[in-house]
Amino acid sequence: MYFGGDYNPDQWPEDVWREDVALMRAAGVNLATVGVFSWSRLEPSEGVYDFGWLDRVMDLLHDNGVQVNLATPTASPPPWFTLAHPDAMPVRADGVRLVHGSRDTYCVNAPAYRAASRRVVTALAERYGAHPATVMWHVHNEYGTVCHCDHCAAAFRAWLRDRHKSLDALNEAWTAAFWSQRYSSWEQVLPPRATQWRANPAHLLDYRRFCSDALLGHYREQRDIVAAHGPQPVTTNYVMAGWTPLDHWRWSAEVDLVAIDHYTDEPGDGGLAQIAFASDLALSWARGKPWLLMEQGVGVMYTQERMLALEPGEHVRRGLEYAARGAAGVLHFQWRASRGGAEQWYQGMVPHAGADSRVFREVMELGRRLAALPPARPARPEVAILWDDEAGWALQNPGLPATGLDFWASAQRAHRVLWSHGVAAGFAHPAHDLSGYRAVLVPSLYLMSDESAAGLAAYVEGGGTLVVSYFSGVADPDTRVRLGGYPGALRDLLGVRVEEFRPLAGPVTLSDGTTGDLWSEVVHLAGATATVTYADGGPAITRRRAGAGTAWYLSTGLNASGYAKVLARAGVIRRAE
Amino acid sequence: MYFGGDYNPDQWPEDVWREDVALMRAAGVNLATVGVFSWSRLEPSEGVYDFGWLDRVMDLLHDNGVQVNLATPTASPPPWFTLAHPDAMPVRADGVRLVHGSRDTYCVNAPAYRAASRRVVTALAERYGAHPATVMWHVHNEYGTVCHCDHCAAAFRAWLRDRHKSLDALNEAWTAAFWSQRYSSWEQVLPPRATQWRANPAHLLDYRRFCSDALLGHYREQRDIVAAHGPQPVTTNYVMAGWTPLDHWRWSAEVDLVAIDHYTDEPGDGGLAQIAFASDLALSWARGKPWLLMEQGVGVMYTQERMLALEPGEHVRRGLEYAARGAAGVLHFQWRASRGGAEQWYQGMVPHAGADSRVFREVMELGRRLAALPPARPARPEVAILWDDEAGWALQNPGLPATGLDFWASAQRAHRVLWSHGVAAGFAHPAHDLSGYRAVLVPSLYLMSDESAAGLAAYVEGGGTLVVSYFSGVADPDTRVRLGGYPGALRDLLGVRVEEFRPLAGPVTLSDGTTGDLWSEVVHLAGATATVTYADGGPAITRRRAGAGTAWYLSTGLNASGYAKVLARAGVIRRAE
Amino acid sequence: MYFGGDYNPDQWPEDVWREDVALMRAAGVNLATVGVFSWSRLEPSEGVYDFGWLDRVMDLLHDNGVQVNLATPTASPPPWFTLAHPDAMPVRADGVRLVHGSRDTYCVNAPAYRAASRRVVTALAERYGAHPATVMWHVHNEYGTVCHCDHCAAAFRAWLRDRHKSLDALNEAWTAAFWSQRYSSWEQVLPPRATQWRANPAHLLDYRRFCSDALLGHYREQRDIVAAHGPQPVTTNYVMAGWTPLDHWRWSAEVDLVAIDHYTDEPGDGGLAQIAFASDLALSWARGKPWLLMEQGVGVMYTQERMLALEPGEHVRRGLEYAARGAAGVLHFQWRASRGGAEQWYQGMVPHAGADSRVFREVMELGRRLAALPPARPARPEVAILWDDEAGWALQNPGLPATGLDFWASAQRAHRVLWSHGVAAGFAHPAHDLSGYRAVLVPSLYLMSDESAAGLAAYVEGGGTLVVSYFSGVADPDTRVRLGGYPGALRDLLGVRVEEFRPLAGPVTLSDGTTGDLWSEVVHLAGATATVTYADGGPAITRRRAGAGTAWYLSTGLNASGYAKVLARAGVIRRAE
Repeated sequence: MYFGGDYNPDQWPEDVWREDVALMRAAGVNLATVGVFSWSRLEPSEGVYDFGWLDRVMDLLHDNGVQVNLATPTASPPPWFTLAHPDAMPVRADGVRLVHGSRDTYCVNAPAYRAASRRVVTALAERYGAHPATVMWHVHNEYGTVCHCDHCAAAFRAWLRDRHKSLDALNEAWTAAFWSQRYSSWEQVLPPRATQWRANPAHLLDYRRFCSDALLGHYREQRDIVAAHGPQPVTTNYVMAGWTPLDHWRWSAEVDLVAIDHYTDEPGDGGLAQIAFASDLALSWARGKPWLLMEQGVGVMYTQERMLALEPGEHVRRGLEYAARGAAGVLHFQWRASRGGAEQWYQGMVPHAGADSRVFREVMELGRRLAALPPARPARPEVAILWDDEAGWALQNPGLPATGLDFWASAQRAHRVLWSHGVAAGFAHPAHDLSGYRAVLVPSLYLMSDESAAGLAAYVEGGGTLVVSYFSGVADPDTRVRLGGYPGALRDLLGVRVEEFRPLAGPVTLSDGTTGDLWSEVVHLAGATATVTYADGGPAITRRRAGAGTAWYLSTGLNASGYAKVLARAGVIRRAE
Repeated sequence: MYFGGDYNPDQWPEDVWREDVALMRAAGVNLATVGVFSWSRLEPSEGVYDFGWLDRVMDLLHDNGVQVNLATPTASPPPWFTLAHPDAMPVRADGVRLVHGSRDTYCVNAPAYRAASRRVVTALAERYGAHPATVMWHVHNEYGTVCHCDHCAAAFRAWLRDRHKSLDALNEAWTAAFWSQRYSSWEQVLPPRATQWRANPAHLLDYRRFCSDALLGHYREQRDIVAAHGPQPVTTNYVMAGWTPLDHWRWSAEVDLVAIDHYTDEPGDGGLAQIAFASDLALSWARGKPWLLMEQGVGVMYTQERMLALEPGEHVRRGLEYAARGAAGVLHFQWRASRGGAEQWYQGMVPHAGADSRVFREVMELGRRLAALPPARPARPEVAILWDDEAGWALQNPGLPATGLDFWASAQRAHRVLWSHGVAAGFAHPAHDLSGYRAVLVPSLYLMSDESAAGLAAYVEGGGTLVVSYFSGVADPDTRVRLGGYPGALRDLLGVRVEEFRPLAGPVTLSDGTTGDLWSEVVHLAGATATVTYADGGPAITRRRAGAGTAWYLSTGLNASGYAKVLARAGVIRRAE
Repeated sequence: MYFGGDYNPDQWPEDVWREDVALMRAAGVNLATVGVFSWSRLEPSEGVYDFGWLDRVMDLLHDNGVQVNLATPTASPPPWFTLAHPDAMPVRADGVRLVHGSRDTYCVNAPAYRAASRRVVTALAERYGAHPATVMWHVHNEYGTVCHCDHCAAAFRAWLRDRHKSLDALNEAWTAAFWSQRYSSWEQVLPPRATQWRANPAHLLDYRRFCSDALLGHYREQRDIVAAHGPQPVTTNYVMAGWTPLDHWRWSAEVDLVAIDHYTDEPGDGGLAQIAFASDLALSWARGKPWLLMEQGVGVMYTQERMLALEPGEHVRRGLEYAARGAAGVLHFQWRASRGGAEQWYQGMVPHAGADSRVFREVMELGRRLAALPPARPARPEVAILWDDEAGWALQNPGLPATGLDFWASAQRAHRVLWSHGVAAGFAHPAHDLSGYRAVLVPSLYLMSDESAAGLAAYVEGGGTLVVSYFSGVADPDTRVRLGGYPGALRDLLGVRVEEFRPLAGPVTLSDGTTGDLWSEVVHLAGATATVTYADGGPAITRRRAGAGTAWYLSTGLNASGYAKVLARAGVIRRAE
């Protein structure tokens, strides 16, 4: 079990290092993530390296029994890089080119940035690939930076040619005929830059897909370099939020170890539910293999308004929860709270007040408890929630029938009901083999391919229980609405034909006394039975038996108790409390 | 009576067209607006035309008894245009040049855009000006795009020379001495681009006027081309909202048929009141001639938060209401709901669910009912509300004595009280001959010329009843405050001298038990009588008899019942209920 | 006693001037601030001057007994300047270069702007330095414009070299190691331009310091020019708000007379408290010498939503209050309300309604009353509130433990309690000699140097009473957190060690029945006694006797009554009512 956190000795005088390792030993720290933002220290000017300090850190950690998760520093190019390669700075949709002064100022498609990345990573791998402290490689940090420059435009076009093959196919996939957007040559295709009015949703979605692949290309390039210099597992850390353009299924196939950064914002049980959700996602992305909690806050949560301290003991309880859910390690941001810089008010394992503090005592307690744990055997999920980042991105497009649609929130709500009723839950891509699950829940999953829809039908026919929430399967993977009645791809399976959406301004009472919120529909039965109706008698919740299984449809937004009631009736949970 | 909507066959496979015309016949559709956004299909690359599909569409419609309102496609230049003429892309006030990816990406003052517009419109007119299906020309779409580029700067200067004749006159009109803005050469005059702090209000206003004229120039150019190729009436569709820089009186003199796009956002009676307001505006702009409802939603309303379905039957009732108020046609956006693109979630006459739907059944019902209607004879307006787009724009300037002043809302409130009391209302420009109206209401009409003020005085002297709301006539057409006491231009006529404005943070009770809100004033009587007073005894509502008529002044914001009470007392309505 | 206001005759026809001076005499006006925004009139094109109108104005005023506070016009370069020197226009952080059309469109570090400033100021000083009307020079207006252009970048680097001496010291002061921001050459250092994510707080703070000095350099240059041509005192007017990058202590050492522009936004007693606060600040910055109220509203207040009239008599009462608190003059913006321009709705001493108005009658009344006043002898402050603009700027940085921290508001709250309890209050810089005050209050003063902390310790040892609010002294002047427990610089003196901050989402009840809000802390006693505790028994308010004095610490946000209770207990006020 790994225990530790981000360690940035390059931000402290060397005399602090001795205290660091002493405290690490006291706390049972066995893994330090080193060098995440060290580029300006490692390569103070272009092509000039300074490894002396890192040599001393690696040796010191090794001598003290602390292993190193060695980071490549590419998430924050140094100031010299800006001046040497202005074309490699990221450009916003409105054309503003950003400069250094924060972090993540690069365009991942800029040749100069790619070359600089390769150079510094190669130097690092050559020097430390065989160092005995190096047990893991941490590539980059929190991928997610998006750019709209001309390098990106060129790369996007190449990516589109590969995806759509022909301009005609692109025009068709993007419904480019609408608003006179048909492209007559590839060079006319641009990133979604500032335009006059609402942008094309398929264009926006393909750009997210492209960004995911472009960033993944940068990751793979680094992974291959470090893998060539040592046997250590290689990973990168995911930001657990809907804004990142990362297709987690694709990415997780390319990392040796799924790693997540997870920051909660609810206290008490709500926080534990968030931890269960993130852990189950990570475990699912890892296909059941161990995964790593690469970052979490230390005894504190951050909201837009203020930082909030956890209750005494809560940090320990949370750390154990991650471990029980399959984390191969519980790490923190960061070892020592910074004196300065943009995150100086983030709590550290060693806070500003020093080791004589509640926080550090809880860190020691957590280290002790984790070391004593037997290996976790997280329960095999009985129930799957479908997860598709692409469908989640599409739900962030403008111009949907209602605001407030949110894939992450929808999946999280479904997960929380399972979690609070003690059901082992996991996540699956719609195209996965689902036969092992006794039930499959579909959060508002806007886009669905024909193949995925067929898979779900086969799953139900084979005896599965499927529970589909509203606004699922209504569009194809290019965001085109499936015609003839919603929810197009699932209409036959669910045995309904939805004629209209009726988003709600407030809650309505359903026939079983539960409430529907945010959304409702005009549902016609076409094989299904209505189990719950709206005030006007129209079906709200329906059920259809198909083959050996059952397919449920929820045409309105249910709160936790309403959702639990359905799941209980469907036999997914034992009883709704 | 025209019945139909926007028809975009170029966005659908040809096999759908057959179903389209069959359904059109079933619904009684007799007019289809074709080609609004077809430029990229009509001219796939510069100078290369593809009319084959449109030939087939025109013939098919004609063969099925559907007439065509043929649109020029200039509201959305194709992607090739961006690359060929980057200088013709619109520039925001902050200098960001927009690109294609939405619609309306052009600068109306860019020579390349004007040339491309002329070319494609000429080709279209040559080919279809004599086609038997063509019964109307729809130029462009929803004019309103504003740009701040150097082409605009040059055109703005030419327009200003024409308006103000000399730089000295410009400096005087703009009060340029304030904040050291005196211009010493014409080339120093720019569009209102991003500046350090609050902009000059006269500068902002003249730019709106200029934009109205510049857009109108583009319209006229196209109108003259199509008119040279056929006898059909020519029009364009107005967006019914205060942000568009269109002087509707000037524009309406240049169209053969006033046409509006009208989207409501209130259900029930509120929606009917919105329809009455828009219809009466259109009828007034058309000087009593028939006008056209070019676009409306289909059984649905759109708000910022969500789309809202109308109650059953409400769509039919609304369509009949437009017709009863003088619409020569009731059209929709759009015939068939789009599968993709930025407006894929706008409802169509044929919705995603298909023709077997409440929406299409109501469309058919509306078509049937409209066809059976006798020609409408909208009541001649007895009461006029003054309408002046320029004054409305000026009320959107920053730095007024209170936020929340809104000309459209003010006029709409006045209209709604008349409407709810069964009074036939119309709109007139302050400079019009008002003698035919038994009463004239003046919403908060910030700017007023000497001539208009004299006209109002003559109107009252001649026996008219004038009811003026606060913040009317306080400034001249160049936004300069008229000195010596508000409301400058109307002071003598109203018989008051307002010493100070006292905007209100909340409602206050007036002497007659009604409430004043948003605004109050320190009013001195100078010939008028106070009919209602503030708590401190100061006049709130005043009346002055002048010649054969009466002039009322409302120095505070009245709600509907308070306004009705005044109008009843003034004899404008029979009784306030 | 000066009485008058901004006078802009160049914005009016000359026939108005005669009425102006007649009314000025009637009102007892004896000082007019002339020419604040007259550049485009004084120098209509580059190098061409027009002084005729100003000659006539100066003579006219002089002949009528009105003295002139002659302004340099550099706060608003004319339109010709923009075209001649585009590189001298200000650039926003996102790179947008602003143009004329408002005011303050210049970069203070642009050589062309500096040269143009010197030229016009020299011409003005040569012509009017010896004019008998000229009794004061008013340089520029409301300094505060910030720019991010390349001229600024170069000047910033020079300033940083001077402050930090070496790049190593800069990297250390800025904690540049965090997020890989270490600079390896000076040319890499830029203004804080748009970047990817949160900016470096020390970088932001140094840029504010630099802007203060850069603007001060511009002021000094002009001051020296006018001082070379006449014996009159020279000043400039401060905007009383936290956004201006002016270090008021440094600036006040360079002006002959501290002058403030003060706009209130509370009626009644709240407004008087705001006046007391601003006056005491001005008096303190002036080190007890007379100061000048250069601008105030005329009988009216401006909020974001609306302008609000003062109650009858309130304007007079306010003017007398400024005078009683040491103002050597009570001036207004502006003499005559503008007809046009961006501030046409600002009230004037002569309002739009003319001299027959409540406002002008109150102006005359105020003039009469001020003329009859004996010289003010403002009470010598017994209690000092520490004031440090730099600490205030740092509190505006992003990423603090809670939002809503505000130095100006914090100081104002402390001042208001003293004011409402009749205690003569003043302001002092932390490094000042504090021995003359019987008590010193420290609002949330984020940054503190070692020297200042030592000074405060000496002050307490010597018998003083010190009352420190939360989040004071936690960081050094480079925004680096002082380690080992908060509030670092004051820990020993206060006898506490704060382990954690616990910002509050809502109020909590303290042991003495008062409430804490916004903030709380985990406080350990280390020499101090807890006088008030939190619900969990932890110290909330503490006291430590040190030498002959006492140091109090308030670890939570107190409302006025809670703060008064502490001050009463500490003997700073007699009794909390």
